[in-house]
Amino acid sequence: MPRYRLLVEYDGSPFNGWQRQDHGASVQGAIEAAAAKLCGEAVTLYAAGRTDAGVHATGQVAHLDLPRAYSGDTVRDAINFHLKPHPVAILAAEEAEEGFHARFSAIGRSYLYRILNRRSAPALDRNRVWWVTAALDEERMAEAATRLLGHHDFTSFRAGCCQARSPNKTLDRLEITRIGDEIQIVAEARSFLHHQVRNMVGTLKLVGDGKWSADDVSRILEARDRAQAGPTCPATGLILTGVVYPQPPGWVKHRDDGTA
Amino acid sequence: MPRYRLLVEYDGSPFNGWQRQDHGASVQGAIEAAAAKLCGEAVTLYAAGRTDAGVHATGQVAHLDLPRAYSGDTVRDAINFHLKPHPVAILAAEEAEEGFHARFSAIGRSYLYRILNRRSAPALDRNRVWWVTAALDEERMAEAATRLLGHHDFTSFRAGCCQARSPNKTLDRLEITRIGDEIQIVAEARSFLHHQVRNMVGTLKLVGDGKWSADDVSRILEARDRAQAGPTCPATGLILTGVVYPQPPGWVKHRDDGTA
Repeated sequence: MPRYRLLVEYDGSPFNGWQRQDHGASVQGAIEAAAAKLCGEAVTLYAAGRTDAGVHATGQVAHLDLPRAYSGDTVRDAINFHLKPHPVAILAAEEAEEGFHARFSAIGRSYLYRILNRRSAPALDRNRVWWVTAALDEERMAEAATRLLGHHDFTSFRAGCCQARSPNKTLDRLEITRIGDEIQIVAEARSFLHHQVRNMVGTLKLVGDGKWSADDVSRILEARDRAQAGPTCPATGLILTGVVYPQPPGWVKHRDDGTA
Repeated sequence: MPRYRLLVEYDGSPFNGWQRQDHGASVQGAIEAAAAKLCGEAVTLYAAGRTDAGVHATGQVAHLDLPRAYSGDTVRDAINFHLKPHPVAILAAEEAEEGFHARFSAIGRSYLYRILNRRSAPALDRNRVWWVTAALDEERMAEAATRLLGHHDFTSFRAGCCQARSPNKTLDRLEITRIGDEIQIVAEARSFLHHQVRNMVGTLKLVGDGKWSADDVSRILEARDRAQAGPTCPATGLILTGVVYPQPPGWVKHRDDGTA
């Protein structure tokens, strides 16, 4: 059975997350149902990152096996056709190399977190940002973020339900910039613990509004205690922007916006 | 009666345009109703640009007279409170100088038009872009756009229902850039004819897909005949990003993203 990898964009707002469940809509379930209409059989989809309810993606990668061979363009167009009216789009599809696994072959994940930092609520980006009215000092946040870079035990930023074997991860990038009223946080690592990005952002927000310092962030990291860190920030602001593989998918060369 | 000017952001999708009407929701009607709850009297709002149904704004400017004096922050917060759940936000409010009129005092308008140019439909930016599947050559479009710069009779790009006294306008900027799958068109002028931006974009799209050349655009402009130009492109991709006044509003110094 030929294996295909898919580059997937979705609006997480109407879904109970990536993962298929008995009740409620999921991104996985929507794509599996569309793929089943293409090939006439039940299919199972595996994603690089099983995003939570409300989390969006512009660069999710998933794979599935199909009983027959199709061109990548046919797979993309047919699944897109059957996906309507769900806010999910297959941006690219191609046959994968032997042994490829969207989750286990991945060697990097990139996330963007968007904070809208102003007095007035978002009119255009509702469900796309975390709306924070308290003035945030992005330079304080950026300085504190450097304390989290590198290889650490991230227990303080790990969800209670996280299934990873180890709390040790290497955070390669955590950059914070302001563009007008918006603060953008870019996070990159080989992999993340469950809720790690949202728990780091929830903590850095408390640095930005003056409650905590960069030293507090170091103290919280070293405590290895979830109760020491800030709250989990909302899913609405989080976007999975890209997944990296040792053998880059064919679509990487066609994209020049750096999201895949 | 003190006069206030408002900086307004809105999602145009659920509205029948800016202008109040007997039937259907309008941005003007939503803000007027919210302002009436603040001051207890009917108020009338005047906008710099009366955007069409489906057109968005991040930098619309409007003014209204209130029977009593309030601080600008009170006007902003009270109108925002009463605006819920409409996707409209007052970003700033302040008392205006003597004789200020949001429409007649304006000396510049800026629009952004977004084209999503790819095979797959937008999942995250539905109602925010014009989705074009044919590959567009943005360099061809940018070269042709220069033919429209300057002072011209824009009859070929004017809606039949346009109420402007003269078809002569001066187009100061029409820049086209590609960012990944997105083509962004920035248009600036003292003022525009009705549908002028959307008719120019509809024509430039036909240059981008190879049907027309830059010389065709010059010919169309000189023909002064609406039937010669391309179709009006969809409202969904258009955003009013800013309005310029001789005496800049106080909020301009607080914004560093160039949209006001």
